[in-house]
Amino acid sequence: MAQPVNPPRGMRDFLPADKARREHALGIIRGVYRSHGFDEIETPVVEDYVRLHAGLGGDNEKLSFSILKRGIRPEALAAAAEAGDAEQLADLGLRFDLTVPLTRFFATHRAELPPVFRSIQIAPVWRAERPQRGRYRQFVQADIDIIGESGLLAEVELITATSQALAALGLADCVIRVNDRRILFGLLAHCGFAAETHDRALITIDKLDKIGASGVVEELREIDPVAADRIGAVLAGVEPALNADGAGFGIPLTREAIAGVLPDGAAEDGVASLATLGEALEGGLPEGVAVRFDPTLVRGMGYYTGTIFEVAHPGSGSSVGGGGRYDGMVGRFLGQDVPAVGFSIGFERVVDLLALPEPTGPDAVALIADVDVVPADLLALKRALVERGHRVRLEKRQKNMKTLLARIAEDGFSRVANVRPGMSDLGELEFRQLAD
Amino acid sequence: MAQPVNPPRGMRDFLPADKARREHALGIIRGVYRSHGFDEIETPVVEDYVRLHAGLGGDNEKLSFSILKRGIRPEALAAAAEAGDAEQLADLGLRFDLTVPLTRFFATHRAELPPVFRSIQIAPVWRAERPQRGRYRQFVQADIDIIGESGLLAEVELITATSQALAALGLADCVIRVNDRRILFGLLAHCGFAAETHDRALITIDKLDKIGASGVVEELREIDPVAADRIGAVLAGVEPALNADGAGFGIPLTREAIAGVLPDGAAEDGVASLATLGEALEGGLPEGVAVRFDPTLVRGMGYYTGTIFEVAHPGSGSSVGGGGRYDGMVGRFLGQDVPAVGFSIGFERVVDLLALPEPTGPDAVALIADVDVVPADLLALKRALVERGHRVRLEKRQKNMKTLLARIAEDGFSRVANVRPGMSDLGELEFRQLAD
Repeated sequence: MAQPVNPPRGMRDFLPADKARREHALGIIRGVYRSHGFDEIETPVVEDYVRLHAGLGGDNEKLSFSILKRGIRPEALAAAAEAGDAEQLADLGLRFDLTVPLTRFFATHRAELPPVFRSIQIAPVWRAERPQRGRYRQFVQADIDIIGESGLLAEVELITATSQALAALGLADCVIRVNDRRILFGLLAHCGFAAETHDRALITIDKLDKIGASGVVEELREIDPVAADRIGAVLAGVEPALNADGAGFGIPLTREAIAGVLPDGAAEDGVASLATLGEALEGGLPEGVAVRFDPTLVRGMGYYTGTIFEVAHPGSGSSVGGGGRYDGMVGRFLGQDVPAVGFSIGFERVVDLLALPEPTGPDAVALIADVDVVPADLLALKRALVERGHRVRLEKRQKNMKTLLARIAEDGFSRVANVRPGMSDLGELEFRQLAD
Repeated sequence: MAQPVNPPRGMRDFLPADKARREHALGIIRGVYRSHGFDEIETPVVEDYVRLHAGLGGDNEKLSFSILKRGIRPEALAAAAEAGDAEQLADLGLRFDLTVPLTRFFATHRAELPPVFRSIQIAPVWRAERPQRGRYRQFVQADIDIIGESGLLAEVELITATSQALAALGLADCVIRVNDRRILFGLLAHCGFAAETHDRALITIDKLDKIGASGVVEELREIDPVAADRIGAVLAGVEPALNADGAGFGIPLTREAIAGVLPDGAAEDGVASLATLGEALEGGLPEGVAVRFDPTLVRGMGYYTGTIFEVAHPGSGSSVGGGGRYDGMVGRFLGQDVPAVGFSIGFERVVDLLALPEPTGPDAVALIADVDVVPADLLALKRALVERGHRVRLEKRQKNMKTLLARIAEDGFSRVANVRPGMSDLGELEFRQLAD
């Protein structure tokens, strides 16, 4: 009896057409990132359990898959299980993002890396989320990061390279929302929120797209009613711009426009930094890409310290990429502060937006052999075609030729030739075009 | 204080030069396999625990990493741990090879695949082996498999494509050792070993390279002294050929030569099959690749049913690839027998044998900026160079320019230009060549 067979829950197999499509898109991203001076690295898919649960991964830590320790006595295992002591049960875990492994990598190899290190990581990560449409338990992220550069040059290089990569994929019609953690904290302080309530207030502001401005203000009132109403006035002022579509979205990235929507004198360092960023990006982005200030952009992770950004595309309901500056994080491993900033493309969302790549082209041919063709002859023909640069598939003549030919065409082969007994020379083959 | 930071035990990070080298080699393998009509697929890195422990992975099952079940009560976990009930502790595991996932994949997607499916899988696998030189806990395999073809055409396509891939990597000076499980079992039966002792006898014969012919015969005597001496006579006859180097190794793949080293009438079906394989491969392999019969080749896995093969290269102490026919295995999932044969390249061993790839070439340039250069100018220059097809890295002028230039050259950049304040036009840059 056949058993039911499926990939593990929330994970996917990729058939040839899907796999080709994905590799094609990844090749484009990789090529753009390399041309912008980034270098690809790779780390193991697992990291030490302790490192994955050091508080750097936010909620993702709770979603991580752990690897059962090997070679411990059942009694010790049982004691650890009973005590809920995960660290004694598991010594490794699958990475839930590429940032934690990168900071570990940088600390391990710093002496072998350039002082300003521009990395590419294109690799899967794992999160035990409840599977749902468009959300998977294994998915690919395409990250670039610059470690060792404290200036805005790093942000500009990241935003430029990511924009170019999206444009090369045909997704230039996107909006990059930009904010700065210093603006968020400065605004909260200016409105009167006590410092110890800032993190809680940010969690509420991050719910804006779910509960709306009035919901946010209501929730913030539980922290501080007066401060909440002051924030409410700022939100009301920017709401029309945040409800606009496409390039009309958000606030232009100029000093006047940014300062104009904030209370006078609030978060001056953040405002100045974003204005400089806007100037530096001027004229440097592919046509179609808009960069806009969004004072309500929070980004979930607690480790961000400065600029933060997120990419929206009209074809996708959620963001297709995001990132920011995380200057304190590398130092946690290294014992010394190192500036860092990264931009991650959510590859699964991007790949869903792409048109199919070109078919394999005129070079892919199939040979359909009669049953009584001598294998050596068939292989000699294949070999000769491969040597000429063709991609060659062998097929056997079958009753339902229509089905066979349709499948061959669907698999990206553009021409077929029949092989009859005695044929052993390329000149004898008569190729015919397959319908698309 | 800096904490010590390393990748998990037995696993490796890949720095840019290593990563580039690996991707370059994988690209060559992938290209050859595609031209031979194979199609790349991908499966999740984990499979169900039960599937990974169904007896198909031999000793590798014991080396697999298991994923701790999520969301079970500590008491239930403790009870399972105490009872040593791994299946209740772990629901998933990291794959230890690409063959078990492939058979599962084929069973899942059979209706969407061509009747004869030629797959490429290039992906990491995990085994908790004791780390040692050249043996890692995460390593890449490059597999091609043909499912649905019972004839020798499949073996020929696999051996040809793998040989071409090795030749394209500059490793054509290899020997492919070939045997057939039917010859092994036929020989054992012919010498008088009872059927129920065959598996045990094969484990002993597999130790030939460790304990020598005399050691093998001695161990086989414990099973059946008379049969052991008969096998001993066969081993003595082939020993000189198995001790020869390179293309002189082993027995030519012709009916006369194969039958010549076996007792009269032993394993006639296997002999006929290998002789036909030898004929079909005639003239079809790249110069340098030798295919030789080795009646002592066993291959560890129990699932092989027919032809088996293994690649030796003079630069490597152990085999750089291997595979064989496993006709019964896909049927375990599908409830119906499906013929299958596969060839796996041990990528880690292959990549160690390769010369370094070419440097990035004349297109990779670095801009070295004075501290007071305006970022917007620097970025405009970078953009203009990227648009012209260059790979561009930005650097800052530093005290020790010699160190900086040496690093830039080492990282594969071939030319540099200084950027001084006020420069914003490509025409103003003066590029100079870096020494290699």
